Amino acid sequence: MPTYTPPTRDMQFLLHEVMKASETGVPGYEEMDRDFTAAVLEEAGKVSSEVLAPLNVVGDTQGCRLENGVVRTPEGFDRAFAAMKEGGWTALDCDPEYGGQGLPYLLNSAVGEMFVSANMAFNMYQGLTHGAYSAIHAHGTAEQKATYLPKLVSCDWTGTMNLTEPHCGTDLGLMRTRAEPQEDGSYLITGQKIFISAGEHDLAENIIHLVLAKAPGGGAGTKGISLFIVPKFLVNPDGSLGDRNAVTCGKIEEKMGIHGNSTCVMNYDGAKGWLLGDLHKGMRAMFTMMNEARLGVGLQGYAQAAVAYENAVAYAKDRLQGRAVTGAENPDGPADPLIVHPDIRRNLMDQKSFVEGARALTFWGAHLIDRSHRMDDAEAEGLVSLLTPVLKGFLTDKGFEMAVAAQQVYGGHGYIEEWGMSQFARDARIAMIYEGANGIQALDLVGRKLAQDGGKHVMGFFDLVKGFARENADNPALEGFIEPLKKGSKDLQAAAMYFMQNGMKNPNHALAGSYDFMHLFGHVCLGLMWARMAKAAQEALDAGQGDADFYKAKIATGRYYMARHMPATGAHLARIESGADTVMALAANDF
Amino acid sequence: MPTYTPPTRDMQFLLHEVMKASETGVPGYEEMDRDFTAAVLEEAGKVSSEVLAPLNVVGDTQGCRLENGVVRTPEGFDRAFAAMKEGGWTALDCDPEYGGQGLPYLLNSAVGEMFVSANMAFNMYQGLTHGAYSAIHAHGTAEQKATYLPKLVSCDWTGTMNLTEPHCGTDLGLMRTRAEPQEDGSYLITGQKIFISAGEHDLAENIIHLVLAKAPGGGAGTKGISLFIVPKFLVNPDGSLGDRNAVTCGKIEEKMGIHGNSTCVMNYDGAKGWLLGDLHKGMRAMFTMMNEARLGVGLQGYAQAAVAYENAVAYAKDRLQGRAVTGAENPDGPADPLIVHPDIRRNLMDQKSFVEGARALTFWGAHLIDRSHRMDDAEAEGLVSLLTPVLKGFLTDKGFEMAVAAQQVYGGHGYIEEWGMSQFARDARIAMIYEGANGIQALDLVGRKLAQDGGKHVMGFFDLVKGFARENADNPALEGFIEPLKKGSKDLQAAAMYFMQNGMKNPNHALAGSYDFMHLFGHVCLGLMWARMAKAAQEALDAGQGDADFYKAKIATGRYYMARHMPATGAHLARIESGADTVMALAANDF
Repeated sequence: MPTYTPPTRDMQFLLHEVMKASETGVPGYEEMDRDFTAAVLEEAGKVSSEVLAPLNVVGDTQGCRLENGVVRTPEGFDRAFAAMKEGGWTALDCDPEYGGQGLPYLLNSAVGEMFVSANMAFNMYQGLTHGAYSAIHAHGTAEQKATYLPKLVSCDWTGTMNLTEPHCGTDLGLMRTRAEPQEDGSYLITGQKIFISAGEHDLAENIIHLVLAKAPGGGAGTKGISLFIVPKFLVNPDGSLGDRNAVTCGKIEEKMGIHGNSTCVMNYDGAKGWLLGDLHKGMRAMFTMMNEARLGVGLQGYAQAAVAYENAVAYAKDRLQGRAVTGAENPDGPADPLIVHPDIRRNLMDQKSFVEGARALTFWGAHLIDRSHRMDDAEAEGLVSLLTPVLKGFLTDKGFEMAVAAQQVYGGHGYIEEWGMSQFARDARIAMIYEGANGIQALDLVGRKLAQDGGKHVMGFFDLVKGFARENADNPALEGFIEPLKKGSKDLQAAAMYFMQNGMKNPNHALAGSYDFMHLFGHVCLGLMWARMAKAAQEALDAGQGDADFYKAKIATGRYYMARHMPATGAHLARIESGADTVMALAANDF
Repeated sequence: MPTYTPPTRDMQFLLHEVMKASETGVPGYEEMDRDFTAAVLEEAGKVSSEVLAPLNVVGDTQGCRLENGVVRTPEGFDRAFAAMKEGGWTALDCDPEYGGQGLPYLLNSAVGEMFVSANMAFNMYQGLTHGAYSAIHAHGTAEQKATYLPKLVSCDWTGTMNLTEPHCGTDLGLMRTRAEPQEDGSYLITGQKIFISAGEHDLAENIIHLVLAKAPGGGAGTKGISLFIVPKFLVNPDGSLGDRNAVTCGKIEEKMGIHGNSTCVMNYDGAKGWLLGDLHKGMRAMFTMMNEARLGVGLQGYAQAAVAYENAVAYAKDRLQGRAVTGAENPDGPADPLIVHPDIRRNLMDQKSFVEGARALTFWGAHLIDRSHRMDDAEAEGLVSLLTPVLKGFLTDKGFEMAVAAQQVYGGHGYIEEWGMSQFARDARIAMIYEGANGIQALDLVGRKLAQDGGKHVMGFFDLVKGFARENADNPALEGFIEPLKKGSKDLQAAAMYFMQNGMKNPNHALAGSYDFMHLFGHVCLGLMWARMAKAAQEALDAGQGDADFYKAKIATGRYYMARHMPATGAHLARIESGADTVMALAANDF
């Protein structure tokens, strides 16, 4: 069975040596010194490896069961959920006014990676709750906040997001769920929602559903959509639970993975709901949480790759098979460990250089969110808005790819469920789909984000890369970093230029290249992250502060990424510059 | 639930217009005229879509069960197996002397693709039997052939291959299974084998296990290994079944996919076996079947992508979501079908251009095998030996990738088992692992095949590409084909040159680039296939023989591959030329 060892050292390196978080002046960051973050990360790591990880396979094997309208979660999930609540892990970055600890989103993301690596399906129960918390916190009335937030912060109640219907996923304008206004100001919600994660379960006293529905007078398409709070049990004025609401779980889906999370068909049969935010502005209310939600899914992608990588390394060191081509390295044993073989290393280095680069990128994204929330930094907000589809799309695509690569290290055992590597791949697969399938992320990036505010944010990104390259042009430690980064950035600019010049005439020329652009952008981001990490590692080496092997390995891993992954940018650019003609050439019937 | 429509038209195009099979002079090909192959393919297609495909999800859902030593296959597998036998589908390319039909391997491959697309797990029962048939046919005594071959050809008995043990997969030198010679000339086999596909089941009267084991006096490592025939039930001199042999199924593995096939732990407790081929030459006996077996696995890879693609197209035409950016294409409906969106097309074109190119490559490989078997064409044998790791490694990697891409078209529904797209991806995943994990294929390619016979075969391949490019340099129909093909071939040559120049000094420089080389080679092969197909399609168009849409779509799909996939060769070359230093830089403990 796989194990989980939290990457605390690596996270500390990012927080304190690469980002120098506590020196950035972001309100709340000043208390994030080494000792404090070490204590939090170590404690979270302990919960992850000791409480959550052992339940990962259990959740996968048992799944969730619907029995007489009640959903039973896998054995042990209840105890683990209680432990998470008791440890305050559900409230880390929540508003202290409602019982939260008010810690930065950055630290919450680091802790979140550990929880997701240890048990992705389990962590979704609180992840969705956090989403509902954020929505009510941003758009709720004082009364709604007082009623729901403390319970969501403590996870005594959990939350859900209800968007998708059988005939509409991406295109929410096709929505059929209706909200009928009542005289008391409430609404009666009627319709069916599907793919509702944690829609029904036995881990909490109450479940607060946030439901998109059409109320009268809103017009056609997405404009007519509003957001409603629909509790499973109505809440009495004194906060106690009242009647059961007319919302029920009709079915649990059989999925490829994340079996430990209940994915429900939810039936709303005139369920009582209350408007959250403005009438007919439901889409806007949803979108205010989109960046965080998508960052969280990007994190899921690389977090699965992270734990899969860790286990692949352990297996590669342990499993004896064949001899090193350059001479036996374990001459007294019957064979050498897998890790001596160049192609196994190529595979492990692909994984390692991705995971660590992705972690750096996600931490940066979380930092930008903190800047935008805690200091109203519009530039940071614009930048993270631009990067969000890259983080979601690129990190989940690559995260899945790398989980599959880790599985491959196990040979035949990788295909056997007992060894756990299949689960990492199967679980990671969903992250490419939900919270906006990755094709939609690419569309969002090229169709919306690129030109946002007159292209200011993407220009800002290019300036940032150029600035870094210029400042470090003569840094001998960054030889092998700066040139590939500049080349990647140049390719990215050329692609953006191609879209500008050709997308006007025919938007298909831009959209046919959107997916490649998202990946090209991802590589440049990871290239920048590696250059930053290498610089910090070299500074630590120069300062002679010990732990030299760690820093040298960091630089070597970065060099690998630059040499072996940055060349992908040229191929993506060539695909983009081939335009839409070959993509759109066929009539639908010729497929 | 997914459906399956056999690609008969496409196969006919390859056989008669691209390959012009019946004119090649290969013995046995002369009867493969259009009408004959159409009849065979249509009949096989009917069995595939009507008998096998409906059992695909059943097999996945029910899996195999071990009950008191007996393995129960999924409901309906027995009837389908009987239908396959009755239709003569198990005997297509087998020797007529033993009841086979003696048809070319090429036609058998075309039919095989259909069976695998329709139901991969089911088809493995006969696929493994075919492997056992080939081994006994090549290495058996006259008596062994007479005893086993007719029953294997008819699939009254099925076969297995027993190589792997818990502690040894790739490195068979570590094998522990022993063969003790008996006075009657037989051996007693003792040991445990794992991952034995179709090791035990209820579809046949008897199961003929081919087992690798160490007999005394063979020396250490793989040199001491011999191959044995170990029947589940001993066979009396009159051909009737005798005693139950001491071979039993200890466990069925829970796998990521191919649930319909029983993957068994097989325990040999002094089971009676008979030497097949020469003593201590078991590895050589296995390797004579390797090309075919690996070609068959490559076929599994793209066959899963083929059926997944077909269903993705159907869904993309059916599912209404969003509007075309260039204006509504289904103005009377609530939304446009998915297929109008450029990124959906990009995805579908990736799949289509891969599947059709892979089919052409596999047919070519099968044709080369026919040439080597039926006319002792040493050049063809050398070429297919070179191409085998590419076919196995590249087609299964990409086949899985494309099955995942097809799943993505379904959005959330792709993750729900009920829709069947997850199964295609899960089933396809195994093909990257078994019959030599793809890293081993890359090692075989670069470490063995490239330099085989003084590099004659790879030079032959380059000459073939160059010859085609030269002959068609002025063909206006091939504009957009020849240049990318030449560029790809040049990159491939540069990579081979890099290995030659640097691999001598340090073999790691070659092996660290082996995986990229395999993919680079794959792209050049598919580029060549597309150039050939485009040429044939243009000739058909010029001849004005009708079906113009088919031929135009063929050329357009080829153009897509050349424009959008051939640029990958440059990135692979850059990775290769970065050498082994970054790959091997870390100490094992730094991972």
